[in-house]
Amino acid sequence: MSFEFQVTSRSSQTAARAGVLQTPHGPIETPVFMPVGTKATVKSMTPEELQEIGAQIILANTFHLALRPGEKTVKALGGLHKMMNWNRPILTDSGGFQVFSLGELNKITSEGVRFRSPLDGSEIFLTPERAIQIQQDLGADIIMVFDECAPYPAEHEYVKKSAEMTARWAERCKAAHAGHEDCQALFGIVQGGMYDDLRAWSARATVEIGFPGYAIGGLSVGEPKPEMERALEVVNAILPDNQPRYLMGVGTPQDFFRGVERGVDMFDCVLPTRSARTGRVYTSEGVLNMRNAVHATDDAPISKSCNCYACRNYSRGYIRHLFQAEEILASRLATWHNLAYFIDLMSGIRRSIIEDNFRDFKAAALAHYPD
Amino acid sequence: MSFEFQVTSRSSQTAARAGVLQTPHGPIETPVFMPVGTKATVKSMTPEELQEIGAQIILANTFHLALRPGEKTVKALGGLHKMMNWNRPILTDSGGFQVFSLGELNKITSEGVRFRSPLDGSEIFLTPERAIQIQQDLGADIIMVFDECAPYPAEHEYVKKSAEMTARWAERCKAAHAGHEDCQALFGIVQGGMYDDLRAWSARATVEIGFPGYAIGGLSVGEPKPEMERALEVVNAILPDNQPRYLMGVGTPQDFFRGVERGVDMFDCVLPTRSARTGRVYTSEGVLNMRNAVHATDDAPISKSCNCYACRNYSRGYIRHLFQAEEILASRLATWHNLAYFIDLMSGIRRSIIEDNFRDFKAAALAHYPD
Repeated sequence: MSFEFQVTSRSSQTAARAGVLQTPHGPIETPVFMPVGTKATVKSMTPEELQEIGAQIILANTFHLALRPGEKTVKALGGLHKMMNWNRPILTDSGGFQVFSLGELNKITSEGVRFRSPLDGSEIFLTPERAIQIQQDLGADIIMVFDECAPYPAEHEYVKKSAEMTARWAERCKAAHAGHEDCQALFGIVQGGMYDDLRAWSARATVEIGFPGYAIGGLSVGEPKPEMERALEVVNAILPDNQPRYLMGVGTPQDFFRGVERGVDMFDCVLPTRSARTGRVYTSEGVLNMRNAVHATDDAPISKSCNCYACRNYSRGYIRHLFQAEEILASRLATWHNLAYFIDLMSGIRRSIIEDNFRDFKAAALAHYPD
Repeated sequence: MSFEFQVTSRSSQTAARAGVLQTPHGPIETPVFMPVGTKATVKSMTPEELQEIGAQIILANTFHLALRPGEKTVKALGGLHKMMNWNRPILTDSGGFQVFSLGELNKITSEGVRFRSPLDGSEIFLTPERAIQIQQDLGADIIMVFDECAPYPAEHEYVKKSAEMTARWAERCKAAHAGHEDCQALFGIVQGGMYDDLRAWSARATVEIGFPGYAIGGLSVGEPKPEMERALEVVNAILPDNQPRYLMGVGTPQDFFRGVERGVDMFDCVLPTRSARTGRVYTSEGVLNMRNAVHATDDAPISKSCNCYACRNYSRGYIRHLFQAEEILASRLATWHNLAYFIDLMSGIRRSIIEDNFRDFKAAALAHYPD
């Protein structure tokens, strides 16, 4: 089977597990962090640079790409992999999260969501079927069902209806994808907000429909961390143990441990790339702001314990100058470093599961990351 | 001698010559195009990428670097080469051109130029001695005298006084640089606007002071091309045949031929890098605008005859998308290509001098570049 998932090691200390997910573009070792390439490019990076730092799979956003350049253009250019010159796996989200982020701009019915393009104001109608068709045209290895991500906070009744609609849409997505399961794995999405009963219901309903992998959506939306942790525990107790679990849009180094120790396998977040462009860099010593004057004449690298291209070749002083001067190379070096840090961290987490010293590794890794 | 220049081939058809200029950071094969790294970075490129496309020497701007991060900061970070991670030759201009571009903001006396920093409004006094001291702190291989670049058009009397002041400043620069000639070659600059008598006077006066190389300034400032050509002929008839000649801030593919066939050896210009960031790319088929809708679904590279990273791996359609989406990778790929094109073109010119088929090469290279 194209998308076989095998759990290869388990932590004796937590629910953490290491595994391998097969895809048509090669295997993914989990737990994995997936850099985000919203508009079919991980901002400021080339595919070769992403490979050099060990990126195994990247994300692209259906919503943005459907608006521009349009999925038919991507298809005409050979699909996402060929267009981007990226030969490893790709995951596309369904566009649901972005559509609902538009808030006032959208109108939801059980049929789908009608909204106006933020690019040109034209009216667009996104349905489960259309979300699948777009993702088929884009051609990612892993694609997502079209879901509603309920706002936070929200009333129980609203979240219940929303989770029910997401489940109905999941069925329609699965039907629309019938026959394509060997080319693209369609993952279900569990919603349910911060309500344990709805999370459990949504997990059961999604598993009942049946998917080769399950995402957990609607977390890291502003809720207190214990809420996120409880939702993960409720959901992962229900999701099949032998299938991959993907915590969408998460997160910080601390969140990686929160997720992994509760059985999550996949993560994505714009944090390392977006914060890099503002000068914020993540290191084993904590977070630094490279714009800070304290770095002006510092000839040390961003992090002495990092072996990325930026840390091998450039001083904090130079990188600070590049940020002050608003040079593109500033974004490049900070992004390169941050992605290397996030990917290295996840690879360290994986190793600690295999070597069964997850807790020690966590304590050391988060020494400079207070909760 | 550190900065030996040898003319190794001459065109039998024109005054074009090929040569080699030795520097402390290695040899430069001439004629040469020097990419501009104004603020100690060639915008969007890494040093390794510049090497990959064959850049032999890059430029940095004294004026910008003195303002930010300040030459003392550059010195504290090990000088330009170490700070930028660039081990090949560097040339710094003297800051004269930028100071005079400020126009109303500056006040010129025979002592130097007083102006307000465009960054923070603070008052700065730039003199020939200070321009040399800054360039010594920056540590480039080739540095330039502090000159006045007269505006165009300008009256004969103004240009005469300006050229005379530039000559006096050149003497002061040479005196200020005494004892450092083996580490950094100080080039003189010929001014004189569009007046043949002043160009000749300035060339003679500068040669009389004596420098290891000579720049020709104040051209490509808006004058008709025949004016530039005549100035080059007047000046190069006077400049020593066995020393390098550098035409500052020039230019287009057409200008390269104009300069080379009149005996110029070195060129620099922001054209390939600046125009790349707006989507304009140079090819053997002429100039294209990558933002144009005609490229939307075109899976051909920018140029089929180009072997640069961008042309080896990406379609016009994808690059157009990246420009539309204002992605950093758009600037990277277009800059990469344009610099590769300019450097390849100059290397083709050099080969045509060695093989003595300069005119044929020029006709073919400019087939799609009407004057």
